[in-house]
This record gives sequence, C-alpha cells and structure tokens, in this order.
Amino acid sequence: MDADPTPVRIGLLGCGNVGAALVGLLTNEPELLAHRTGLHFEVARVAVRNLARQRAVELPDGCLTHDADSVVNDPDIDVVVELMGGIEPARRLILAALKQGKPVVTANKELLANVGAELFEAAATAGVDLLYEASVAGGIPLIRPLRESLAGERISRVMGIVNGTTNYILTRMTEEGASYGDALSEAQSLGYAERDPTADVEGFDAGAKAAILASIAFGVTVVAGDVYREGISGVTPADIDVARRLGYVVKLLAIAERLDEKVAVRVHPAMIPATHPLAAVRDSFNAVFIEGEAVGELMLYGRGAGGMPTASAVLGDLVDAAHNLRMGGSGRTGTLRNGSFLAVDELSSQFYLNLDVVDRPGVLAAVATVFGEHGVSIRSMEQEGLGDEARLVFITHTARERDVQATLHGLRDLDAVKRIGSLLRVIGPE
Amino acid sequence: MDADPTPVRIGLLGCGNVGAALVGLLTNEPELLAHRTGLHFEVARVAVRNLARQRAVELPDGCLTHDADSVVNDPDIDVVVELMGGIEPARRLILAALKQGKPVVTANKELLANVGAELFEAAATAGVDLLYEASVAGGIPLIRPLRESLAGERISRVMGIVNGTTNYILTRMTEEGASYGDALSEAQSLGYAERDPTADVEGFDAGAKAAILASIAFGVTVVAGDVYREGISGVTPADIDVARRLGYVVKLLAIAERLDEKVAVRVHPAMIPATHPLAAVRDSFNAVFIEGEAVGELMLYGRGAGGMPTASAVLGDLVDAAHNLRMGGSGRTGTLRNGSFLAVDELSSQFYLNLDVVDRPGVLAAVATVFGEHGVSIRSMEQEGLGDEARLVFITHTARERDVQATLHGLRDLDAVKRIGSLLRVIGPE
Repeated sequence: MDADPTPVRIGLLGCGNVGAALVGLLTNEPELLAHRTGLHFEVARVAVRNLARQRAVELPDGCLTHDADSVVNDPDIDVVVELMGGIEPARRLILAALKQGKPVVTANKELLANVGAELFEAAATAGVDLLYEASVAGGIPLIRPLRESLAGERISRVMGIVNGTTNYILTRMTEEGASYGDALSEAQSLGYAERDPTADVEGFDAGAKAAILASIAFGVTVVAGDVYREGISGVTPADIDVARRLGYVVKLLAIAERLDEKVAVRVHPAMIPATHPLAAVRDSFNAVFIEGEAVGELMLYGRGAGGMPTASAVLGDLVDAAHNLRMGGSGRTGTLRNGSFLAVDELSSQFYLNLDVVDRPGVLAAVATVFGEHGVSIRSMEQEGLGDEARLVFITHTARERDVQATLHGLRDLDAVKRIGSLLRVIGPE
Repeated sequence: MDADPTPVRIGLLGCGNVGAALVGLLTNEPELLAHRTGLHFEVARVAVRNLARQRAVELPDGCLTHDADSVVNDPDIDVVVELMGGIEPARRLILAALKQGKPVVTANKELLANVGAELFEAAATAGVDLLYEASVAGGIPLIRPLRESLAGERISRVMGIVNGTTNYILTRMTEEGASYGDALSEAQSLGYAERDPTADVEGFDAGAKAAILASIAFGVTVVAGDVYREGISGVTPADIDVARRLGYVVKLLAIAERLDEKVAVRVHPAMIPATHPLAAVRDSFNAVFIEGEAVGELMLYGRGAGGMPTASAVLGDLVDAAHNLRMGGSGRTGTLRNGSFLAVDELSSQFYLNLDVVDRPGVLAAVATVFGEHGVSIRSMEQEGLGDEARLVFITHTARERDVQATLHGLRDLDAVKRIGSLLRVIGPE
C-alpha cells in the first residue's frame, strides 16, 4: 500500500474549530495516513464566511473562498466535508454534492435531526456515502458500530449521556455539592457552557442527538420535534443528596426505546443506579449505553465534543468514504421508514418526587390517598425537615407517566401541599 | 432494498455454543435482516466433529458434514465462518478459503494471536475480507472501530479488561471481601470459570487478546509469546483493602502501549483509580480503554463472552463481508509491519508492594535504604499489624520496573524481611 497512495481531494465547507483540527490531522502525518489507508488526502478548497479571519492552520494560497457552491461544484473535488452547521445553506450544498456523486461527511446534528430523512434518501438514490459519525457524541465511534457492527441486532433501548455541558454541571453538583447556578458558572468560565446556556441545559442539544440515535437504532424517521424534552435547570442539590442516599446518581439522559413496535424518544434528567456503567461517566464525557437482544449491554464512552475528537470522527468517515469511492460505490446506505411513536404519557418507570408540605398530622394520609386514587403505588417515603421546612420525598413503584401526572395534578389541589418540587424518573430494576 | 435480497450462502466450520446462536440469529428474523442489509443469509453447509451430537438448533437435512474441506471447497459457498477454535485445521481451512476468494469470518483468538500475520497477508494478497470482531471482547464492537473509525488516529495506549472470569473474581473480592479461592469457586459454579482455570486466572487468555489488540492498534505483528504476563492468583483481600483505602480498584489489565516508536504489551493485575472508567467495569463484563492523540480517551464496554454476544459480533462481520463481496471486493485489508518491542523491564509506573517484616526499630531504615540504593523513591508507607503480624505497605513514585525488581532482590537479602507479598503496578497520575 505504501506506493502511490490514491489522491483524494477534499472540499471543506466551514473552517472553525473542527475544520482547523481536521486540516491539522490531515497535514501533520500524511505518511502515516497514507500507509494505513492507501489514500493521500489533500484539502483542495475551503469555503469560509470570513476570508480575513486569522486561522489556527496554514492553508495553501488560493484555497480559501467565500463561494461554497463553487467548492461543491468543482469537478476536481472528490469528497465534501460539511462543517458549517445550521440547516441552510448546508442542506442545499449537501444535496448538490450527493447529486454529483460526491460523498459527503458532515458533523451537523441540527441538519440531520431535522431533514436527515431527505438527505439519506438523496444519498441512497445517488448511491453515494453520507457519513455523520461526528454529529453525535463527537469522537466516540457510535454511528458506525450501530449501523454496521450491530446491523443484524434487534436493539431494544439506547440511553445516552450526550451533552457534555450538563454532565459537567451534574458532576460538580454530585461531587462537590455545588448548586446548579454555581456549577453552571464554573462550566461557563471553563468554556464548557455558552453565555446563553439554554440549548444545553434545557436539553435541546441532547434532543437533536436523541433523534439521530433513534433513527439509526430503529431505522425510522425521528426529528428533533418528536423528542420529549426536559432540562436540568430544576435539579437541586437536595435531589442529588436523596439520590445518593438511595444509591442513585442523577444524569441527563437521552433515551430511545422500542416498545411493542413503537418508538419513544425523550430527554430528561433521571436517577440511575450508582452501579450502572453510565453512573461512572463524569465531567464533560459522553457515553451511550445500548441494549440489544443478542449482544446484551454495550456502552461506548469518550469525548463528546471538542475540535480534535470531533475531527478524529470526521477523519474516520473520510477514510471510509474515500475507500468506498475508490471501490466504485458507496458503503451501506439505508433509508428510513416512518415509525409510530409512543407518547411520553404512555411510558412507565419509577418516579422520584418531593413535596413541600404543611407539617401536621393527616397530611401524609391525604397525600397518599391522591397517589392511590391514580393507581400510583409508593415504594418509599421519608419526611425531611420539620415545621416550615417539612418536605416529603417519595419513590414510586413502576407507574405510568400519565397516572403520575394526574397524581401531581391532584396534589396541587391539596391545601397541605405548598409546592411540588422535582419529579425525576428512576431508571433500573425496582 | 426490500425486493430480492442478495442470497449469501454460508459455510460454517464448527457448531457449538456460538455457532448455534449464530444459526438462531440468522433464522429467527430473516426479513428484518433482509430489510436492513439487502442480504438473505442461508446456512448452507455446517462442518462438525460429532454428527450425532444433539444441537440447540435445527439444521436442514444433509447440511451437516464431518468433512470441513468439502465445505470450504464447495463452489456454492460464498462466505466461510470459522468457529472451530484452535490453530489446526482452522489455519489450513481459512487459507484455503481465502485463496478461493471467499471471505472468512472467525472468532478464533488463539489462531490470530499466533499466526495472524500469515492470515492477514493471505487475505490482502487475495483481496478478500478476513474479519474477526468476535475474537476479542465478544460482542463489543472493537476491531472495526479501531481499524476503521480510528484509521487516522495515532493511538498511544490501549488498556483492556478482556477476561470476564478474572473480572468476576476480582469484583467478588472487591465488593464482598471474598478470598481468591472462594471467588474462584463461585465463578466455577456459575460456569464463568473452567474446572482448570489456568488459562483465565494466569492471564493466558488475556495475553492472546492483548496480542491481537496491539497488532490492530499499532499495525505491527504481535504474537501471544511477545506478551509479558502475570495472573491474579496472587492477589489477596489485603491488597484489595489497601487499594480501596488509597482510592484504587484492582483489575487484571491487558495493556498495549507505544513508547518512542516501540511497542510494549503486557497483562498483569494493576491498581487503577476508583474514578477511572475501567474501575466501574464489574462482574464478567469487558471493556477496552483507548487513548489516541486526537480522539482523547475512549472506552468500549460490553459482554466479552457468551454465545449470543459473540454470535452478534460474527453476524456484524458477516453482513460486512457479504456487502463487500457484492460490491466486488474486500473491505480495507491491511498487513502488519514487524515492530520493535520494549521489554517490561524498561517500563515505568508507580508500584504497590508489601513486606512481612520483623517488628523492631531500624527495620524501616534498612528497607528504605534498599529502595534508595536502586533509585526507587517512596511516595507513601504505612505499617499494618504489630509484632509477628507486622507488615509494611509501600506505594512508590514512578520508577522503572528493572529498578523495582532490583529493589525486591535487595530486600530478599535483608534479615528483617520475612516475606515479600504482592507487587502491583499502579496506573494513573501520581
């Protein structure tokens, strides 16, 4: 393989953090890459928004352009790498590249979580690769194992910690007893969280990734809007304390599961057993836990973000796309079916909830009656605090979401209930 | 893809536990598989040692044979799956299949860890796939991510818990304070350990897997005999106690690392920080932790053994091989270079060791002098027990293995040292 590696000319759309890291990886050790893959990559054209901006990498003269269409349409470009983000013009450019028979590698989760089905269809029609390993969980090999290694596997559930910012915040709250606000500030000062952290802390980022994961795991079209979503801004140190005492850890989970041939996809904070492999995923790391009928339990763990890890995933896809191109075809493309969804209402789990109550005899009886009326059975209860500080903490047996929501409704009507605090789903065996 | 899936005729060599599970996976939901992959698999011929044996699966009449050569040579067979184990005749049969242009899927770690280079060479020459995902860590997608997703990655170290039996034993010792002997008996009664547990507990099984992992991670020929090996039979509850007190967990690790362009491969019990992701790998689960320059830290976790998980990995390879065959070629084959090895003597780490000593003034000074003479610096020391029970427990700063071995040699000559207990390498930052 060492002699005459096949040249592969890359058209790069966008050259920010990930793009610069990718150029670095491609140019730092070209011999190693040529030896391993039989390919010689050249970053031939790079489309950027701001030509004047200082970049962390050196690009050959004349390589940069404003005009992304000219890059995609350049007949000398073999493969297109899309790192611009957002839906348009990324969508239009990718469709144009695929139509010309050019494989595309993208890291764009927003795009895939919204118009993925259209793009996969276009790739399948053109018989060309559309690869997107970097779009979920950064550097973790996840899409390829799911699509290829587990091609024959009947997957029942995928549960992931797919947002590093929120996992960092929850880790600080768990390990140092930090408040949500303090942990968020720390994440912001370290650059893990944006000044406006909404996309991360309210679960929008995790929701987009959950949609992509569900699509691959179950072969059905899932868009971000199909995902039930709650964030972590309501999680308190008290919740985390109770979780610890009961042998749980609080994590923001993206969960895609198949129940009776329907698919349910959701993002919310949850308590998971401290012995569960996801419980050991700390700081800004990501991990995806997969349950399949034959393979049993799998977990894939690593860096979910960052220029270098993400560029590493893009490079893996590039090698794949270029290899397939040289073989005269695409890898395994697949199209998505339309699936039916199960609303979050219909799902069942155990629940943790807490109530600030008036501290007087008979309150527990009144509260317990409301649970009972809605068929929600209580596994454990404890009172924390006395008098004005009185709080009841419950863990239910497995119950339907709908029944628990009706219970909350009923509890709000009780005079003795001053405030309903957190509601967290509890994952794991009773 | 639903119309007319491409037929793929499988010749199966060996039909034990994994073979039966594979036949089950292929026959249980053929439509799902056909939809997902565009392939229709047929188990056409099966070579077994004992025709009369009762099998867990139904095979068509006339499918079974004694004559493995006739299966490999049958012109109607498209793909050969080798699940017989051992070196011969597996080696000869695989070479014959490859020479005929038939892709081969194997789960045979012994074969790959001994004559892998020859087989990879033959596959590359023939331009045919030789896939072996199931040979290391059962159902965990590991080989494909290492070879493909990380094709452009410069890997510095791979550390794995790749033997479920020993991890089960160490977990029982850690979580229940069981002795090595009791934990081993429990593993045997559960079927996790063989009656003669040597291959597992002395690290031979992990050593073969370490050789395969090192070969893929670094692209050099590594055979089982190149792997430095220690087992867990000397690990005591006292060692595990000290580890816990210091914030560590004891695991049997297979470690392949690249240092100054040399490769070092070893298997031994080690202390790892309780916060390390490998520390949370419990019971008979396996996991491989990969460190790469761009991707950072990755871990792949799952079931390392068992019929179904292993069959799942074989099926993933089968889909890949059949897809490539249909495309008229192989996936990315690669050959191995001859690498240079670094002997374990030259490696450095922190060390834990304990000494039974005579309890009298001046002993620590004498012991510490021996450490100092060999340039081994002590990070912490504590005395456990008094009088006849006196024991000194040391953790060193980072030191060369060779110097530590010389220190042990010197300590053996001291009258005050009654016995040198365990020596465990300590992984992680000082």
